[in-house]
Amino acid sequence: MHQTFFTPGPSALYYTVDQHAKTALRSGIASISHRGTEFKAIYKQVDTNLRALLQLPDNYSVLFTNSATEVWDLATESLIQEKSLHIVNGAFSEKFYKIVNNSEKEALLTSSEWGDFPEIDYNLVKQADHIAITHNETSTGVSTPLEIVYKIREENPEAIISVDAVSSLPYLDIDYSKIDALYVSVQKCFGLPAGLGIWLVNDRCMARAEEVQKNKKELISYHNLLGLAKQAANYQTVSTPNVLNIYLLAQITSDMLNRGIQIIRSEIKYKSAIFYKMIETHPKLKLFVKDKILRSDTIIVLNTEEYTQAIINFLANKKLIAGTGYGKMNDSQVRIANFPTHSKEQFEMLTDLLETW
Amino acid sequence: MHQTFFTPGPSALYYTVDQHAKTALRSGIASISHRGTEFKAIYKQVDTNLRALLQLPDNYSVLFTNSATEVWDLATESLIQEKSLHIVNGAFSEKFYKIVNNSEKEALLTSSEWGDFPEIDYNLVKQADHIAITHNETSTGVSTPLEIVYKIREENPEAIISVDAVSSLPYLDIDYSKIDALYVSVQKCFGLPAGLGIWLVNDRCMARAEEVQKNKKELISYHNLLGLAKQAANYQTVSTPNVLNIYLLAQITSDMLNRGIQIIRSEIKYKSAIFYKMIETHPKLKLFVKDKILRSDTIIVLNTEEYTQAIINFLANKKLIAGTGYGKMNDSQVRIANFPTHSKEQFEMLTDLLETW
Repeated sequence: MHQTFFTPGPSALYYTVDQHAKTALRSGIASISHRGTEFKAIYKQVDTNLRALLQLPDNYSVLFTNSATEVWDLATESLIQEKSLHIVNGAFSEKFYKIVNNSEKEALLTSSEWGDFPEIDYNLVKQADHIAITHNETSTGVSTPLEIVYKIREENPEAIISVDAVSSLPYLDIDYSKIDALYVSVQKCFGLPAGLGIWLVNDRCMARAEEVQKNKKELISYHNLLGLAKQAANYQTVSTPNVLNIYLLAQITSDMLNRGIQIIRSEIKYKSAIFYKMIETHPKLKLFVKDKILRSDTIIVLNTEEYTQAIINFLANKKLIAGTGYGKMNDSQVRIANFPTHSKEQFEMLTDLLETW
Repeated sequence: MHQTFFTPGPSALYYTVDQHAKTALRSGIASISHRGTEFKAIYKQVDTNLRALLQLPDNYSVLFTNSATEVWDLATESLIQEKSLHIVNGAFSEKFYKIVNNSEKEALLTSSEWGDFPEIDYNLVKQADHIAITHNETSTGVSTPLEIVYKIREENPEAIISVDAVSSLPYLDIDYSKIDALYVSVQKCFGLPAGLGIWLVNDRCMARAEEVQKNKKELISYHNLLGLAKQAANYQTVSTPNVLNIYLLAQITSDMLNRGIQIIRSEIKYKSAIFYKMIETHPKLKLFVKDKILRSDTIIVLNTEEYTQAIINFLANKKLIAGTGYGKMNDSQVRIANFPTHSKEQFEMLTDLLETW
């Protein structure tokens, strides 16, 4: 019996990746030129699949980056005019804030403790020309209610809204007309090997980037937004991309379309529901996120304190690999990923095991 | 019969990659945490293997980047104090020059036509605090004689010397004490899927980066040199890396060590020798690089003019995939990669076929 990775990412591969990877190796996909028609067709398939899967509007482009992390640098460079507001409630939202704060641009901050969500200061919202929202804080298991995103849009319709959906897309069902950019890493919910980011950007982002880059005297990154977008218009990349992963992404998004995005989303809801229900009445295990509204369906965080290693070992003996807490929570928390590849049966087994612990 | 890719990169996978990739998928390597001991052991294996394979001195660190392209941005940011000299004789050396020229730093230029190598202006060499040398111009098949690299060092021992060895390492046998940094993409001579760069940097680079970054007001990239190096000291990366490719790199560098780097290098010399010899007396095919001293052993470029597509089709019918010329040479040249994975038998077949064409 193989191990099942419930780690928050890299996590278990999507269950069809193994077969697709074998096909890729057999057919030489990793050797094809990224300037040829075969690669363009693969890129186009990803583009078409993501539009269908996410109901992505026509004014969005699908760009590839090396990672979601790279987007922080590229967005700082091209999407922020002067002031960027950061809603910070965990390690990843804070990292983006720090990058902007270290840049020549101004970083505004509204923050809360880990496990919570800040009271939004709409005065700050109105001052910003770019607003960074982490939909799903992978470090804490807090998910931003979408009404808050939409309210921010209403309060400042001019600002570019960037959404970090690293550990929630394609589970996240968002109205793309109320945001401008969204980025994700493929090693979370998409269940692929790490080494590729996806950046969805609308035409407002392009206009902003043109404005910002036009007057820029300092270094423009080789992979800057406008350069990526110009190549993407022809299903091309600026430099040699991770072709193998892009091929795998084309395949698994096709598989997800065949399965049906509504089924994938409702299964994730089912799995998180049974798990949260079990934990609520558990004698020893406690949830980190107190407010039900804020609890992520895809990243579940337990306060396990002195039991942390015991729980991880207990599950590992059953071939179930759970994640530790992030950073400062490494020794006191356990994180469980609930991604599309995790089956109901696997999650029921995990839930049953922890119930008896 | 499978196709054999002689394209200049992505190229044929190293012949053991297929088996290693299957092992990786079976054992869940793509799902492991990049913060765990298993990943550190893989990183350490790459580090140890590269030191042995390349006779890398102890004052060098082995860093991972997303690509060689990313190194252009990161080196511009951290290795250049004020003035960078660029020896430009093809598309890739020119791209790096343009990045620096678009930055707030000064780019000095010494250039030649494609297929040739510039007369070095040692007055410019003495002015620069950073010198960028492309050891092997993938766009033209021109290889920089190492005596020129060493002469540049003698003339300006203070400058940081960065070597682009994207399409020549580990064939390249260079004295690392006479340069400071070297970068490579894994999809060329290492025969891996694209999506990973290796940056070898010595302690002089660290000192330079500390000096440059200390007084920097503008944006420092998230993956900046000092950040990468700090993590690398503990066999860690700044953000989730391409773990699968790093694992494959560990395996194929072990395979290369078992095979012996001298054997790998002498086979590449043998293959290029028979190919160049055949072309020299060929009635229709001409070499692009006229000066024998400058001819690359790993990237061979033919002037094929009106025969370009016919030759590519002729070879493709025999399941041998050759590359077109780069950029403006797309329709008039054919490029052939001679990498460690290409066997003597495959190269003899390619040579025999073209001889009769």
